[in-house]
Amino acid sequence: MNSEDALKQVVTSETAAIMVEVVQGEGGIKLMSEEFAKALTATCEEFGCLLIIDEVQTGIGRTGSAFAYEQFGLSPDIVTLAKGLGNGFPVGALIGKEALKDSFSPGSHGSTFGGNPLAMAAAEAVLTEVFSADLLKSVQVKGDWLKEELKKNVDSLSIVEEVRGKGLMVGIACEIEVAPIIEACREKGLLVLPAGPKVIRLLPPLLVSEQELKQAVQVITEVLTKLTQNLSVNQ
Amino acid sequence: MNSEDALKQVVTSETAAIMVEVVQGEGGIKLMSEEFAKALTATCEEFGCLLIIDEVQTGIGRTGSAFAYEQFGLSPDIVTLAKGLGNGFPVGALIGKEALKDSFSPGSHGSTFGGNPLAMAAAEAVLTEVFSADLLKSVQVKGDWLKEELKKNVDSLSIVEEVRGKGLMVGIACEIEVAPIIEACREKGLLVLPAGPKVIRLLPPLLVSEQELKQAVQVITEVLTKLTQNLSVNQ
Ligand SMILES: Cc1ncc(COP(=O)(O)O)c(C=O)c1O
Ligand SMILES: Cc1ncc(COP(=O)(O)O)c(C=O)c1O
Repeated sequence: MNSEDALKQVVTSETAAIMVEVVQGEGGIKLMSEEFAKALTATCEEFGCLLIIDEVQTGIGRTGSAFAYEQFGLSPDIVTLAKGLGNGFPVGALIGKEALKDSFSPGSHGSTFGGNPLAMAAAEAVLTEVFSADLLKSVQVKGDWLKEELKKNVDSLSIVEEVRGKGLMVGIACEIEVAPIIEACREKGLLVLPAGPKVIRLLPPLLVSEQELKQAVQVITEVLTKLTQNLSVNQ
Repeated sequence: MNSEDALKQVVTSETAAIMVEVVQGEGGIKLMSEEFAKALTATCEEFGCLLIIDEVQTGIGRTGSAFAYEQFGLSPDIVTLAKGLGNGFPVGALIGKEALKDSFSPGSHGSTFGGNPLAMAAAEAVLTEVFSADLLKSVQVKGDWLKEELKKNVDSLSIVEEVRGKGLMVGIACEIEVAPIIEACREKGLLVLPAGPKVIRLLPPLLVSEQELKQAVQVITEVLTKLTQNLSVNQ
């Protein structure tokens, strides 16, 4: 992530496209740096390759904007979507710039369920609700609050490396493997996910309430504080 | 299809599995022969390879039995399903014999929408309705009627090679390309599909009424008769 050297090493004039996440999900809630975003745009221009942003995890309001790339000053040629697009209904989509439309015309990518009317109705309803200015704003506000509150409560613990994220996609990077933390949170009624071995990933519903976020912070603080104490006693 | 020589040529002790359709869908509504089904079973036994039947198109009552393989005396190790399983809801599934369960345990094939509760509810409802003895029987009766009626009406036309199928999966193999036939049927309000360039494929809903089937036979008869006359005039 964010290595301009790696970018230079792999991209050549033979490269058709570069595909990236702007906030790595499974990779550990790692944000693309401003410098890397600029280098990416410059590289795509220099080598005439397309920029594909995988917004399967970050898209549809998750980070507080319709698409996460908007917050990184990028202008992708293609964007991939799924997860949030159906809000529980299985659906995925690919959006491209108009210039590409002849390379992917109707029928060129047939699939039994492609364009399924039920899926399209579900996605349309989701987009109508989520792409409202109020909802996106509330995701930013709640996301910022969650991040700040977590920083206040757990950043100083020795097992916590960093709290980071965008909107309601937040990671707590730890110095230790997080599997037992996830398990302890679950026992207290809070569902969180790992993102790689050492990052706790929080992906609350976009409609989560302030009260629920407070409860979540409380559970996480309790679990991490207790674990830190136990580890220091055992050392 | 149905070539025992081809089977002998490609299968070796290195073969992990053989994957086939018992009624080829896209391939032209071609039925597996009894001899080939026996050779298939013998070959799988001889070389210790698995038999995978792709029932994506034929499964869930389409051919008048829950799965089409039941009518071919086969005992597959793995069956793949989709299309009919959700009755319009996008869902797919894989069923395997118990002996294989440790090779494909929970979590070994993670996917965002896998096991999605909405999809599972849709599939459960479909299975409850379709796997009733009455419904399966009615598919057999309607399918037999459709095939016989088509044979009576169009088999003698010079452009028709054969009417064939299982249950409500019926093909009219023609001597000519069928694209204009499909178009002419559509203009008369009947939606049919090609299966390869020269086969008209009929896949009516399992709940189609007798009246609707009669109308369909009438449209197809009209279109094929007119086309045959035009072709003989032009010769
Ligand atoms: C027998 C069979 N298997 C698999 C598929 C795969 O369908 P899809 O590419 O839509 O997933 C199809 C689609 O027509 C099919 O007929
Ligand atoms: C960024 C991203 N892209 C693509 C996928 C693909 O998801 P699936 O394998 O469920 O289709 C995922 C799943 O987590 C993802 O996070």
